[in-house]
Parts: sequence; C-alpha cells; structure tokens
Amino acid sequence: MVKLSSLFSLIKAARNEIPADLLIKNCQVVNVFNGLIESYSVAVFDGIIVGFGDHEARETIDLDGQYLVPGFIDGHIHVESSMVTPVEFSRAVAPHGTSAVVADPHEIANVLGMDGIEYLLETSANLPVDFYFMVPSCVPATHLETSGASIGIPEMRKLMGKERILGLAEMMNYPGVINGFPKVLEKLELFRGKIIDGHAPSVSGNDLDAYLVAGIGSDHECVDAYEAEEKLSKGMWIMIREGSQSKNLAALASVVNRVTARRCMLVSDDRHPDDLLVHGHMDVVVNRAIEEGIDPVTAIQMVTINPSQYFGFRGKGAIAPGYTADFFSCSSIKSVQPDMVFKRGKLVAKEGKLLNSIGTISNEYDLLSMNVDQIDEADFVLSAKGSKIRVIQVFEDQIFTKEFITDAPVTEGKMGVDTSKDILRISVVERHRGTGNVGHGYVHGFGLKKGAIASSVAHDSHNIIVVGCDEKSMCTAVNGLIEHGGGLVVAAGSVVLALLALPIAGLLSDAPLETVVSNITELTNAYNELGGNLPNPFMALSFLALPVIPELKITDKGLVDVRKFDFVSLFI
Amino acid sequence: MVKLSSLFSLIKAARNEIPADLLIKNCQVVNVFNGLIESYSVAVFDGIIVGFGDHEARETIDLDGQYLVPGFIDGHIHVESSMVTPVEFSRAVAPHGTSAVVADPHEIANVLGMDGIEYLLETSANLPVDFYFMVPSCVPATHLETSGASIGIPEMRKLMGKERILGLAEMMNYPGVINGFPKVLEKLELFRGKIIDGHAPSVSGNDLDAYLVAGIGSDHECVDAYEAEEKLSKGMWIMIREGSQSKNLAALASVVNRVTARRCMLVSDDRHPDDLLVHGHMDVVVNRAIEEGIDPVTAIQMVTINPSQYFGFRGKGAIAPGYTADFFSCSSIKSVQPDMVFKRGKLVAKEGKLLNSIGTISNEYDLLSMNVDQIDEADFVLSAKGSKIRVIQVFEDQIFTKEFITDAPVTEGKMGVDTSKDILRISVVERHRGTGNVGHGYVHGFGLKKGAIASSVAHDSHNIIVVGCDEKSMCTAVNGLIEHGGGLVVAAGSVVLALLALPIAGLLSDAPLETVVSNITELTNAYNELGGNLPNPFMALSFLALPVIPELKITDKGLVDVRKFDFVSLFI
Repeated sequence: MVKLSSLFSLIKAARNEIPADLLIKNCQVVNVFNGLIESYSVAVFDGIIVGFGDHEARETIDLDGQYLVPGFIDGHIHVESSMVTPVEFSRAVAPHGTSAVVADPHEIANVLGMDGIEYLLETSANLPVDFYFMVPSCVPATHLETSGASIGIPEMRKLMGKERILGLAEMMNYPGVINGFPKVLEKLELFRGKIIDGHAPSVSGNDLDAYLVAGIGSDHECVDAYEAEEKLSKGMWIMIREGSQSKNLAALASVVNRVTARRCMLVSDDRHPDDLLVHGHMDVVVNRAIEEGIDPVTAIQMVTINPSQYFGFRGKGAIAPGYTADFFSCSSIKSVQPDMVFKRGKLVAKEGKLLNSIGTISNEYDLLSMNVDQIDEADFVLSAKGSKIRVIQVFEDQIFTKEFITDAPVTEGKMGVDTSKDILRISVVERHRGTGNVGHGYVHGFGLKKGAIASSVAHDSHNIIVVGCDEKSMCTAVNGLIEHGGGLVVAAGSVVLALLALPIAGLLSDAPLETVVSNITELTNAYNELGGNLPNPFMALSFLALPVIPELKITDKGLVDVRKFDFVSLFI
Repeated sequence: MVKLSSLFSLIKAARNEIPADLLIKNCQVVNVFNGLIESYSVAVFDGIIVGFGDHEARETIDLDGQYLVPGFIDGHIHVESSMVTPVEFSRAVAPHGTSAVVADPHEIANVLGMDGIEYLLETSANLPVDFYFMVPSCVPATHLETSGASIGIPEMRKLMGKERILGLAEMMNYPGVINGFPKVLEKLELFRGKIIDGHAPSVSGNDLDAYLVAGIGSDHECVDAYEAEEKLSKGMWIMIREGSQSKNLAALASVVNRVTARRCMLVSDDRHPDDLLVHGHMDVVVNRAIEEGIDPVTAIQMVTINPSQYFGFRGKGAIAPGYTADFFSCSSIKSVQPDMVFKRGKLVAKEGKLLNSIGTISNEYDLLSMNVDQIDEADFVLSAKGSKIRVIQVFEDQIFTKEFITDAPVTEGKMGVDTSKDILRISVVERHRGTGNVGHGYVHGFGLKKGAIASSVAHDSHNIIVVGCDEKSMCTAVNGLIEHGGGLVVAAGSVVLALLALPIAGLLSDAPLETVVSNITELTNAYNELGGNLPNPFMALSFLALPVIPELKITDKGLVDVRKFDFVSLFI
C-alpha cells in the first residue's frame, strides 16, 4: 500500500507531526483564490504543499519578504516553434516560471504522425516543466498539399487514453465544422464531453453558434475586443495570445473584467528560439498584460488557476494545501521576474538559470524525415508558358499574402527572375512520400539580389520551401538541407553560406538553444549579405506554404488561391 | 451513425438552414459568462440551444421582455429529506426552476445499501430534474450504532463507473481523515483525481490542511465568515448552505466578492416536505442571497455556472450555443419567481405547476426495510438500577443536545417518567438486522403529557426512535410504524392517533407530496394535543440517534457521550 502510506505521511506532515521537507518563510503569497497577497509560510512535503504557517522542516528558505507566485501554465503552444527538443525547451522556460504547457504537436504530427507525437510525449516526461498534449485535429491540414502522415480516428483513439493527453487540439478546420463535413464531425463526436480547443478566426453569428454546438470550448484567435466579447458571451474560454508571431494583448486586454476574467487565459501559441533565449516565456506575457492595464493578480490567475480550471487539472495552478509545490519567488508582481523557481518542491532554477542538468537530448530516436532524393538544377528549370504571371506578395511580419500580376521575367524562353523588381522564384519540394512533386511560383518581398534560402519548416505540411534568384542556388540550398535531415539554409551558387540543421522531423534541432539562436543569426546575416531585407525571412518563408491563410500560397502541388480554396495556374 | 447525423442537424439549425424547434423571443437573457443582461432571441433544437438571434422555428414564444435564467443546480442535497420519491421531488422543484441536483444518498444507503442507491438512480432517470449522485462516503456512519448496510471499497468501485455518479460524497469522517485511518484513506485514494466533497465543521489550521491534502475539494459546513474565508483561501469551493434545517447565508454572504464569487455555490443540503410544497427550492435560496446583498447575477451564477464548473458538467448552467436548453422565464431577478420552466427545450411548468404528468411512483421495488418483529410492552420495561440518571436535553431547532443529571423517576422499582419536569422515556429499536437491540434513555424537551411519538427516520442509521410517557404508548407507536414499513407516528395507549407511512426504506413515502405534508400536519396536531410543544418534533427526534453531534445521544446500542465518542450508562 505505497499510495496509502504516502497520503498518510502527507497528513502527518500537514499536522506538523513529522517534519516537512521544505519551509518557505517570510514570503508574500499570491493567493489566486481570494486575490489577496497573504503573509505566511508555506510547507512542502513529498512535492506537495501541506500547509501554511509554522512547520518544522528539514530545510528552510527565507524569502525576505519576496512574493511567492504559483508556476505559470501556458494553455496553448506549439513547442515545435521553439525549434528545440522538450529538454531544451524546459531548460529555457523553467527559469522563467513556467511549470506546465499544453502543447498541440500539430507540426511534428504532420511530418511523422504517431511517431512524432510519441517522441514528444516520451522525451517530455519528468522534466521541470509538465508537458500535456492535445490530439492534433487537422493532420493533414488540407487536401491541397502532401503531408507526411495523417491522424485519423484510429490514431486518435490510441492517443486519447494516454496519460498527459487532455483532449482534441484546436479545430482549425472551422469551415469543415460549420459545413458539417462528416470526417470532421466524427472527430468532434469522438471527443464529445472532453476538452476540445477551438480556432475560429473572425467566425461570428450563426457560424460561431454552429461551431459551438459541436462542443468546442475555447478560442485563441481573437484579434479584436468585439470578436472576443461575442465569443465570451457565447461561453467560449478566451485564450489571449501573445506569442512571437501574433500579439493580441493590446487589442484584447479590455475584455478582461471582474466577471469575464475567470474565463480568460494568456497563451503564447508559439515562441521562437531567440525570444525564448533573450526574453522568456509566460513571464513576458504576464508583464505585457500588466502593462496593458490588467491587475497583476488577475494576470497571474490567467496563467495559473484559470487554465487549471479549463483543463480540469487537479492540484495545479495555486499555492494551497494539496497542490503540487510548483511556484517561484520574485521581488515584484507589477513586473514579474522569477528568481527562485521550485518544481514539485525542489529548487530547480535561480536568477534565470537552471541549477542542475535535466538530462541530455535523446538520440535514441530515428526521426529523420527526408524521404526525398537530392535534387537537380533541372528540376527548377521552368519554361515560359505565358507573358503574365501571378506573384505572391509578402508583408513584413504578416502571415497573409496578396496576389498581384506582373510580366513574366523570361530569358530565352526560360523563366528567370527580376531582382530589380524583387520578383524571385519560389518552389515547394515534397519531402515525405517521394512523389517528386515540385510546385513552382513567384514571390515579391524577400529582396534577394542573388542566392537562395530554403527551409524544411513550412506550415502545415512542412515540405521544403525555397526562394531564390537562380536554379543553381536553389538547388544547393535544397540539397544542403536534405543532406542534414532538414533545416534552414542560405546558399549562393554552389556554396552553402549558413545552415541550421533540424534533423528531428526537419523541425527541431538536436543542439542546445544557444546554438540554434546563433545559427539563426548567421543565417539572417548571410541572407542580408545577399540583399535580403525581411527582418524574419525564415518565419515569412514558413507561412508561404500554408494554404488556409489568404490570398495566394504555394504547396508541392502548385499555386493555391486561398479565397477559392483551389489551385490556380502560374501563367495567365 | 445516429450521433453524427444529430450533430449535423444541430449545426444546420444553428446556421438557420433548418428550422429550430423553439424560438424564445423578446427576452432578457441572464448571461452568466459576462454578467450582462442581454436582449436577444434564443433558438433551441433537439433540446440544445443552437443560437442567439432570429431563427426560423416551429414554435415561437414571446416573453414580452421577461428575463430568461439558466436552470438552477443544487450542488448538495440529501433528497431523502423531502420524504418523497424522485418523481415527487421533481414535480415539486421543477416548477421552481431547479434543473439539476447533486444528491448524496447517504440516508437510504445506511438502510438498504446498494439496493437503496440503485433505487434512487433508477427512479430518478428521465425526469424534468437531472439527478446526479455522489457515492456515500460514511456508511455506516459510526461503530456506535447498527446500520442496515455498509458501503465499502467494492461497492464504491461498482458505483463509480456508473452514469450520473460524479465522485465521493461529503467526507463526514473528518477525524478519520485527519488521523489517517487506513479505511478512510483507502476511500479517498480510490477517488483521487475525482470530485470529493467535504464536510469539515470548524476544522481549521493544520487539521484543515491535513483534510485538504487528501484531495477534498468543497465544504458546506461553514457557519461563519472567518471559517469560510480560511477554507476559500486554501482552495476549497464553498457551498453556502441554506436548507430547511441549517441556514448559513446571513453569516456567509459577506465572503462572496468579485474574486471569490466564482468558487462559491448555494446549496440546500436538505429540504423538508412542507418547505418544498409551500416555498420552493433554490429559487428561495437565491432570493435569500439577494436579500443578503449578493448581486442577483452573482447569486444566479452560484447555482448555475459555478456548480457546473465544480462538478465538471459540460453544457449545463448557462444559456449559450451548445448548452442544454434548461432555463426559465421570470419577471424580476431581484426576487426570482420562475414562470415558464423549460427542460431540454420543452415547456414543463408554468406559474408554479408542472404541465404534464411525469410518470407515476414506481411500485416495482421491494424496499421494505423493517427487519424487526412486533415489539412487546415488556421490551420497554426498565428496572431502576440507581437513583440518578443522565438525561438528553433537546433544544428547539438545534441538532446538538446537552446532558444533565436528575433523579430517576422510579415507581415500585420500575422506571417511569416525570411529566411535570418533562423527563420522558426515549428508546431506539434496531430494525435492520433482527438483533433485538433496544437502547434506553431519558429525554427532556418534548413536553408530552401522555402518549408517544416514534420515527423510522433517525440519522444516520435510521433505526426506530421513540419518545413516550408509558410503555404501552411507546409500544403502540413502534408497532404501528413497523406495520406500515416505517414512518412517523403518534400514539396514546393502544391507539395510533396519526401516522405517515414511509414504506420505502422507512424513509420515503410512496404518496404525493401534498399527502405527506398533510399527514405531517396531522402528526404535529396530534403531538400538540398530547401536550407536545416543539415546533418540529419529528425533526428533533430524527437527530437524537446521531452519535456524531454533541453532547448526549442514543442509539440501539445505548447512550452515547459524543464528547468521548463512547457509550455511557444511563444510571449514575
């Protein structure tokens, strides 16, 4: 009866009949239940908070009047956006006060299916950050591209029984829900009564009602208060997103009031490597919320007890008897900067640094995903089949694009580029199934004068996407990337100028976060030297194959007019 | 694929592509998510709310500006306190806006064990009130009495998988938790991670911490704000009780503020037949809360979305797309008086009356529970074994008692009574296992000048309890009761003067609520005519065998000094 004796010991410790493991004294506890800042000691036994007030303890830590704040929960993130493994991700975020994340492994699932999800599940156990997962709802994302895998009903059934799997991840296929597509409804029925996250940008009125009757409980896509207010009033939990890519706090802070606060959370959705390394994680988001006028304790509730409630966690998200001892100290709650971070009652980080190694990046897994042969210059040669072409217009830090029509840059019957007008080649090379598919198009906005950049991170199917000024550079970039099992690359002519290898599914590095960030800096510098002028070229690149965000996108199957949700020809 | 097609139809109805079943228009919706009163129409299809705003519908009801309020949820009640079957209980409370109750079948379980719980489960299905159940945690309640059954780990395992069973009912044995009794901890471990209700009167400090580390989530026993504030700050959900017996709203209303409100509920705990018939149910409690200064929408949240959240209900406790169409209309929310009550989108009650029969009281069950032979006068004859006796002193409308010592009323070596000093006989006759146990004692406070009153409702083991002036009357009362399978009875000499038969477990009537109430009036009148002066004599009687509430109580095994939690002798 191990369990009973463990509960018995907890009770003994709570009654101060046996010493606690740890007593945090002289602290101001942020109490998320009554909203007060309360002065008392906190006793911990066996990783669990066993009481307030004086206790005998094996170890005492005097916080000298500092605050004690419950560990932060990020209720919605795609950890693949960090480009590092769960171990590295934890190493980065634990010192910033993150104690748990709820991840949607949508990206790795699109590449490796169940193997990818199981890899994340297995390598994220027993870290100083608790990883929970939602089952990706939309793999493949569309029929307009070739993905590496699909997650259907049988796979979902296998996943939904597992520990740390909470429900169905953001149902991005809102048109599928609203139009009642049987394959979509089947998934929703499978998860009926469980947590189903939503993703319903600009969906409102009857369409939103239709989305909600399917049992979808949350949304993180609101971009204005009006949208969030409608969703709140119809019972959705609002995850206010403030990530590396999309930042909605400024627009949404006003919807958080004394009544609605309980149904609002703060989430990141994504967190890029440099943001993680330089700035932090949910601490940054909480501080932004406070800057936007949200009361500090309310902001803290939005990343502690509120997500705990939404996800049905027991004993998480507060400092109280019976709760897991996940908390951190800090000297201000008007601008939170975690000092000592405790996980299950153990001090794991101090002053922004992890204290102990938390394990190494596993190399037990074979997650190479490049099922594609080295490519030849000839594969990029394109003959002129008209005088006018459709061009994808890219905007700085936006994921939507515009389409415009221009003269085809033709040289001797062969399609070239026009660097003077920044009209460059773009191609998507299928990398999962050996189909040989290559989609061709043109793009405006990257500013390259020569050379090429390529990436195996390309939402949602993560085929290889390449932008360049000539076939040779494009070929070098793509082949360099294939050789390393995926990654980000800058090349010119036959030379690879900079490269970040992402051998895990073509999405994640097996290197430390610091290496990844310095590689990205090298890549950006190399891109700039070739004339490039986008601040985040690889980020921009990664969204150009996403055929669900308007207007013109490109996949391995060709150019997609997202407004029509169908293919269009390059030449007019 | 029936399910899919049903979701498909809901979506179609939400989008107004097929007509709704019902459109409630011209109403002011109480929105428990944002706290606003909002004017829009509410469309219902297949029992589910499918949207706000104009919809085509087969039927339209114009509320002429009335409010529309979500159906009320009573998060903690012992339905046996109503003395009627679930059908009758529903008939009584549905017109008062109750849409769901969470019941602890502790009373019937003490008499009939699993048969009793299954009876309530089965006869409470498909009524206009949803019945949920918690698994009784303390059957038998103590070792100081003989109960009819016990609910141990094997029984709990059988129950916990069933539909409509939510968790472990109020853990009344708080000394058992705090002292780490293995049999108690085993039950708590079994329900770890599930909902476990608490019952921790005056438990505070380290003892409360010990109670909480066991995973107990709520409390409905607070009697003052100080107690409730400690429990709230330590993470307990507070169920503010305002029942027929205990009324805590006046003392606790002040703890409900903008931060704590979300973790507060209003519950009844018990509701006596006359209160149900004359006053109502949660509508009365909500109105009391408003009188105590709680904002009406907050009070409504405390019986709708808050219990829904605590119990993890999906689609209950609000008016929103995807939620069950349980709501009612009323012309004021400062004093709620439900007019039209809808259950799963059907109009079930109007102006306080149910519109249709909801089924008859089942007589399929054999729930006779009187395993005791007719008793003989001789069984009550008591010889004098001392000159001083302990007497139980009863106080009007209180469940605690005091002990006092007085001269034994002896006549010819035989124990009698002293009606001039209101020193009467009291006995408890075991009725479950044919043990022949009869516990004897004396009581002060009932005021009878002659005759006797008896009851088979006697917390927690529900043996037969009788108070009287002579052995013959006591015998008549007890035998009258046994003959009818249990009940409440007033007798004098050899004549039964009034009787309410409770053939279902000796706890519930098989008659309509109106009959039960009129029988109780007859019983009280008969009691008054015999000199009795307590306002609620049978209620007082029912708590005298409860050996967990101080000071002096009596069971079938003898007199109990609750302070010592042990037996004491009658004679000193």
